[in-house]
Amino acid sequence: MALRRIKLVVAYDGTNYCGWQVQPNGVSVQAMLQKHIEALTGEKIMLTGASRTDSGVHALGQVAVFDTSRPWPAERFVPALNQRLPKDIVIQSAEEVAADFHPRYQKTLKTYEYRILNRRVPLPNQRLNSYFVPQPLDLEAMSKAAEEIIGTHDFHNFCSVKTKVTNTVRTITNLTLTREEDMICLRITGDGFLYNMVRIIVGGLLKVGFHKKTAADIRKSLETSERYVVGPTAPPQGLTLINIEYLE
Amino acid sequence: MALRRIKLVVAYDGTNYCGWQVQPNGVSVQAMLQKHIEALTGEKIMLTGASRTDSGVHALGQVAVFDTSRPWPAERFVPALNQRLPKDIVIQSAEEVAADFHPRYQKTLKTYEYRILNRRVPLPNQRLNSYFVPQPLDLEAMSKAAEEIIGTHDFHNFCSVKTKVTNTVRTITNLTLTREEDMICLRITGDGFLYNMVRIIVGGLLKVGFHKKTAADIRKSLETSERYVVGPTAPPQGLTLINIEYLE
Repeated sequence: MALRRIKLVVAYDGTNYCGWQVQPNGVSVQAMLQKHIEALTGEKIMLTGASRTDSGVHALGQVAVFDTSRPWPAERFVPALNQRLPKDIVIQSAEEVAADFHPRYQKTLKTYEYRILNRRVPLPNQRLNSYFVPQPLDLEAMSKAAEEIIGTHDFHNFCSVKTKVTNTVRTITNLTLTREEDMICLRITGDGFLYNMVRIIVGGLLKVGFHKKTAADIRKSLETSERYVVGPTAPPQGLTLINIEYLE
Repeated sequence: MALRRIKLVVAYDGTNYCGWQVQPNGVSVQAMLQKHIEALTGEKIMLTGASRTDSGVHALGQVAVFDTSRPWPAERFVPALNQRLPKDIVIQSAEEVAADFHPRYQKTLKTYEYRILNRRVPLPNQRLNSYFVPQPLDLEAMSKAAEEIIGTHDFHNFCSVKTKVTNTVRTITNLTLTREEDMICLRITGDGFLYNMVRIIVGGLLKVGFHKKTAADIRKSLETSERYVVGPTAPPQGLTLINIEYLE
């Protein structure tokens, strides 16, 4: 029977997982999904995700595909899988796509959000989806420094040294910082992100917010071929993969 | 040494607790707090809370008092306790109050919030602090019915039959329903709330939102001396005790 390719949009709370990708120790979101798709279809399947989110990182719009010979309408996978999955993983939509659709090797715009809780004491209901920062932050200085990041740059200094990628040039099309009461939200959109790139950008901008670094440091970090990292990698729980837009 | 009375404002994620009050089985927020205050002060203490929130109900502004002979500045209890407490309970403030201040027997205005996630499929990051309702809701009908509840009424039909209270008259000073994207927020303020009262109000208003009941049913339920309950008790995880204002 001909195989059909099903594209899922998946939301998850990453708190209790070792990240998207199957790991030797710990339960991954991918493994949990794969197990339940296999139980539903009765087939051995291979699930391929668009983005390898780290342990503790969340998603609203992760994209993943698998092939099945089952003739069911694609949208039936939404309730059928949600009934089986733990409540911290929820399929948002399912549709049939072309057999050569690949979630990772196509032109996309990805949007991430990073949330910073900026107040005197933490809030228990925000502990799993924001980074608590008690020190005052200069949001204006951070926004100004963020402008340096927009555009096409070599982001080799905004990337974990563990990466195996050789081309570290990426284009950031949009980066905004907004504050609503105690919560600062950073939204960033681009054509691709290196390993830990968003969290290193946030770490650098926080240094600017503390007046320990300046927009010029961010610029230098983008322009130099030397190793020059402005700030640490911000922790995972503040980060959510919001959306992946397929451009072709 | 003279005893000083310390008033704490406490926020907690109620997910992992059997409610505020010490129970024979399960860990209560009160027991957890009491244990850490005793470890800090080295004294046997009695912690008294303003509101006995149920299992799974959250708080941003629970109020609790205890007496201590320790001469430390009251505000020092905030970092000292937060360092010891699990991350799902956070002291927001601490101050010394009069020795006869009682969190429950004084005139107050309490504000609660109930959150309803109203969309086709659930969101994993909202599962612990909202009630997921996939059916369409008529917010206008709900808001109109909510107006019936504002004012002084006998709320005997908006109260668990398990209550031991004899006077079931309460005054609701404010009740609003707002929608932001998929999240409906009900905010209610009053001089007191019976056992399960907010959750039964929400259950009744949801029936109105589904067009199963009307504002006239809510009115009847408030005016009749008979047993006439409009809807079920909405589940606990949507409810948060926001604030307690002491009026005297």
